[in-house]
Amino acid sequence: MNSRLLMAGILSVCLAGAGQAQPAQPQSGPRQLPARTIPVPDTVSPQMRALIAQPVNPIWNVVPKTSAEWKALVAKNAAESIPAIRAMRAALHVKVEPAAIAGVKAYIVTPDVTPPANRNRLLLYFHGGGFVLRPGEAGLAEAIELAGFGHYKVISVDYRMSPDFPYPAAMDDAMAVYREALKTIKPKNIGIFGTSAGGSITLATVLRARTEGLPLPGAIAPGTPWSDMTKTGDSYFTNDGIDNVLVSNDGFWGAAALLYANGHDLKDPQLSPVYGDMHGFPPTILTSGTRDLFLSNTVRVHRKMRQAGVEAELQVFEGLSHAQYYRDITAPETIDYNSEIARFFDKHLGH
Amino acid sequence: MNSRLLMAGILSVCLAGAGQAQPAQPQSGPRQLPARTIPVPDTVSPQMRALIAQPVNPIWNVVPKTSAEWKALVAKNAAESIPAIRAMRAALHVKVEPAAIAGVKAYIVTPDVTPPANRNRLLLYFHGGGFVLRPGEAGLAEAIELAGFGHYKVISVDYRMSPDFPYPAAMDDAMAVYREALKTIKPKNIGIFGTSAGGSITLATVLRARTEGLPLPGAIAPGTPWSDMTKTGDSYFTNDGIDNVLVSNDGFWGAAALLYANGHDLKDPQLSPVYGDMHGFPPTILTSGTRDLFLSNTVRVHRKMRQAGVEAELQVFEGLSHAQYYRDITAPETIDYNSEIARFFDKHLGH
Repeated sequence: MNSRLLMAGILSVCLAGAGQAQPAQPQSGPRQLPARTIPVPDTVSPQMRALIAQPVNPIWNVVPKTSAEWKALVAKNAAESIPAIRAMRAALHVKVEPAAIAGVKAYIVTPDVTPPANRNRLLLYFHGGGFVLRPGEAGLAEAIELAGFGHYKVISVDYRMSPDFPYPAAMDDAMAVYREALKTIKPKNIGIFGTSAGGSITLATVLRARTEGLPLPGAIAPGTPWSDMTKTGDSYFTNDGIDNVLVSNDGFWGAAALLYANGHDLKDPQLSPVYGDMHGFPPTILTSGTRDLFLSNTVRVHRKMRQAGVEAELQVFEGLSHAQYYRDITAPETIDYNSEIARFFDKHLGH
Repeated sequence: MNSRLLMAGILSVCLAGAGQAQPAQPQSGPRQLPARTIPVPDTVSPQMRALIAQPVNPIWNVVPKTSAEWKALVAKNAAESIPAIRAMRAALHVKVEPAAIAGVKAYIVTPDVTPPANRNRLLLYFHGGGFVLRPGEAGLAEAIELAGFGHYKVISVDYRMSPDFPYPAAMDDAMAVYREALKTIKPKNIGIFGTSAGGSITLATVLRARTEGLPLPGAIAPGTPWSDMTKTGDSYFTNDGIDNVLVSNDGFWGAAALLYANGHDLKDPQLSPVYGDMHGFPPTILTSGTRDLFLSNTVRVHRKMRQAGVEAELQVFEGLSHAQYYRDITAPETIDYNSEIARFFDKHLGH
């Protein structure tokens, strides 16, 4: 109420234009913004400055028309990312072994030294990429980081993806691996994490485990989760074109959502977990960036969890677009991110 | 590194324009954005929808030219806000008594019932308004809310302000009241909170208390603190014109910063506490909104505190501009905000 009175109160005072022109906007309603230029922030590391300064990711408005076109894009993207993944693995002294767990393809990612406190703990990791990108080794980046920086054993689940295996294949694979892990590891000793689509899988796994009467994991770390596939949430609009990783929902990512849903309701909490009931969730740490198209996807889950009494933490990285926080293992932000996630699991997982 | 490879990897795939046009941007560097329209989000309460839909606060580009013009603006704004403040006081059954504490004007704000756990606790509150707005009763809103919703006794400090009393008058008043409180209340039982300029005072009080060798308070709650007065921080640019409360730094607020600093270095941690050393800070909860011009001012303090090992929590409200979280006592977001702050003080303050 103050702001309305404030506005009414200053009309008699002289106006002095200073700085950028703003359009007149006498009516209530949508915000009209003029064209503008947003500088690269100087409040981030040089490594992140370089990522933020990159042109917008040209994938954003690519919409493959056929299954073959989707697969060609996925294969080319994956092949080209492998050298960087292998370099990261070597730099962080992490061992990566392919495996099949309950029939699901996966990688067992092991640090060179596992501290005693982590010997009976296990992290399950789900990579991002719109439920279509980053099969195989291409999905390993964050698993390698948390093994290397956090000294955790991580199972990186190479879940089945679109276009051949739309929803619920990814969730079926996630649940199969989780059920298998429960056979040998105490639930309180299991952590689950993942970014973007992997953040959605992380949340949906907890929802489905509860529905199926399974014990819940000890803690989870959904990074900038794709918690709402319906383009609902303010940052889908405010950060459109500001985020240089996702750029916009209206192109590749919106198409990837429909490809994954394959006719299922996008508002089903298994696809858009922000619509799920968060009561009883384990301790959760959520991560985003101020330029992230999914900032609202992240903070909406955080608020909903807090309202449900969940011990939920939020961290938002200055200036970063979607998932940039884990993009450069030499950047202080990436080290900070991994330190926070490891600290959170250290604190909340059982021994 | 993945994103660069990703970009390189999809050039052979057909482009299909879908949704909003984005400018070609082949070069690294600043982000060029076209003119656009941002809808009012439907992920907030009806009360907050109404606030978000309001035209931009016309004060944003008012720059008074003389001391008399500043004072006229302040007086008119303050007078017009009093009825709403009094209505809030009545609605929340809170008693407000003017007082002088160590020679500083203040209000003692008391709930109708103080629970036993809070009888030996005290909150100090510093209002916002750019170190120039909201003298007297006009600065009481959040103090009344935390007394009413959180059942805390609050001292709302009516600190001296620009233009007659620039820096360090506000900080001298804050320290005088804090020192006085320490005479009768255990430091661990004292909480400090405030929004915007008041968030800056909250942080600067802890910095100065440490410098002066005083014991630190038990917990603090800086809301969207004006932690950097130099227009440094990404959301000064990304949320320019999106935030309808502050709107932009380039007008009233930038002028208010210079008026307050009165020639002092804006990067002095007493004026821009993000540049201060956060080691040893008490538990801290920070609040912002996704549209907040000060989102970066908030998350930069949060990251810096976390890196210093401070028990610091962050909450970011969906769709809200600067300080809108406390603007409507009937809105679920305002109730949620006050509940979180009260819970935080309940948890961390001594008895």
